Amino acid sequence: VTKAGERRVALVGTGMIGGSLVLALKAAGAIGKVVGVDPQAAERARALGIVDEVAASPSAIGAVDVVILATPVRATASVCEALAPALKDRPDVLVTDAGSTKVEVLRAVQAMLPFPERFVGAHPIAGTERSGPEAASATLFAGKRCLLTPVATTRPDKVAECAALWQSAGFRTTHLDPAEHDRALAYVSHLPHAVAFALASAVGSGHADGLSGGGFADTTRIAGSDPIMWRDIFLANRGPLLRALATLESELGELQRAVASGDGAALMALIERARAARKQVLEGGR
Amino acid sequence: VTKAGERRVALVGTGMIGGSLVLALKAAGAIGKVVGVDPQAAERARALGIVDEVAASPSAIGAVDVVILATPVRATASVCEALAPALKDRPDVLVTDAGSTKVEVLRAVQAMLPFPERFVGAHPIAGTERSGPEAASATLFAGKRCLLTPVATTRPDKVAECAALWQSAGFRTTHLDPAEHDRALAYVSHLPHAVAFALASAVGSGHADGLSGGGFADTTRIAGSDPIMWRDIFLANRGPLLRALATLESELGELQRAVASGDGAALMALIERARAARKQVLEGGR
Repeated sequence: VTKAGERRVALVGTGMIGGSLVLALKAAGAIGKVVGVDPQAAERARALGIVDEVAASPSAIGAVDVVILATPVRATASVCEALAPALKDRPDVLVTDAGSTKVEVLRAVQAMLPFPERFVGAHPIAGTERSGPEAASATLFAGKRCLLTPVATTRPDKVAECAALWQSAGFRTTHLDPAEHDRALAYVSHLPHAVAFALASAVGSGHADGLSGGGFADTTRIAGSDPIMWRDIFLANRGPLLRALATLESELGELQRAVASGDGAALMALIERARAARKQVLEGGR
Repeated sequence: VTKAGERRVALVGTGMIGGSLVLALKAAGAIGKVVGVDPQAAERARALGIVDEVAASPSAIGAVDVVILATPVRATASVCEALAPALKDRPDVLVTDAGSTKVEVLRAVQAMLPFPERFVGAHPIAGTERSGPEAASATLFAGKRCLLTPVATTRPDKVAECAALWQSAGFRTTHLDPAEHDRALAYVSHLPHAVAFALASAVGSGHADGLSGGGFADTTRIAGSDPIMWRDIFLANRGPLLRALATLESELGELQRAVASGDGAALMALIERARAARKQVLEGGR
């Protein structure tokens, strides 16, 4: 068994999340050399000291102990297909990912990797609206939560190894079923992003440039997020997101009716409910 | 004429905004003693050193040079009605407000004050989701913008005096027509608040407590805002807010259709448009 600090890592996708992860793992002495794969950003990641080597494609990563997938989620199938030959003869490699959806990613892994039982899905609940290796930071993850989504067929030793890996990067880890993950995250993350995009566009058509305050800036901060990443998340988690959007539509309809009818009591109730809901979501235990 | 630093001020509504304003004006030496009127919060504001005296009602403010209305906007008519006797024999008093809507406030002032030509509407684009005098801060307003909404009948000397007052508190001032103000702010401020309330409630029903990240926290920060203040704003600016809500509904509908039909190109276009819109609203000149 390779010692933790000597484990060779392949990072596929060297953007803000993947870059921050290997920086944190290196700082913790949890990994050794990192080979980066990313047609757009791997050379920049090497120049920034995030990866040590660059491979031209997933098939060229060489002998590694850990593979971290940190591409937009819909690239998972093609990346795994390209990785398969390189992993075939390495029965102990741990594969994990950092994607914001888990069911479709797991399906892609199961279809394309020779040993899907070595794959442990992960979703670091962290990040910013910035993107690219330039936005990577070794301290982005300190104290944040990482959701791990192993399934019945996942090798228990790989689950333990994967949890220890993410913990080395500063995360608290929590296990969750992939479908439950996608359903819950549709509400707590994908819906706020969808809303921020729609809100920014709506306000942009309001001829109010330069008149905004902190409210607009905060509610739309995540509208600056990476378009490819979010296109992929929305498409990969279509069903749960559509159900969350329907819930929002119903809430907005209620508010709209209260405003239209001048119903102050209904508005008060609605605002008080929103305050309580926010507190519950932020402070609720898992 | 009373010297700036000796002007006696009546502050009606001693919450976060009114409290911050008089703290900033005092720090700048722009005003003298402040008498506070607020059945809920005036005593707390006095204990905090924000106001120097407490009057039991608007009619009991005594001889003042400036009146600042900083109550929820729908209280303006009754406050002005109660103020009228105290202002009748003081033809030089400047009256300003700090409300987030301007048309209905102006209508209330015109109906209830003996000298509406001395009233200059103002909207400080600043604040936090906190409320009450405990949330007041002398530095909340530094470098922020205050929109002034004088009309054709407003006395020019009072407009100048009012602009100088808000500038003393740290604001850059901009003049805007009241109706144009309400239309623009419906988009850039009232809509984000409405959305934050609806979003917080929708996510609260998603059984995802404890799984949120920075996106949810930021998009819903303003859902923690004061319920009475926001009920009043929504009701006072009903027409423009309903039009802004319709624009948002149309944006959400477009996003929903793109997700449902799996149209990645449409999603990319929508996200890119949102990013550009956000930048334009934040950086657009006035």
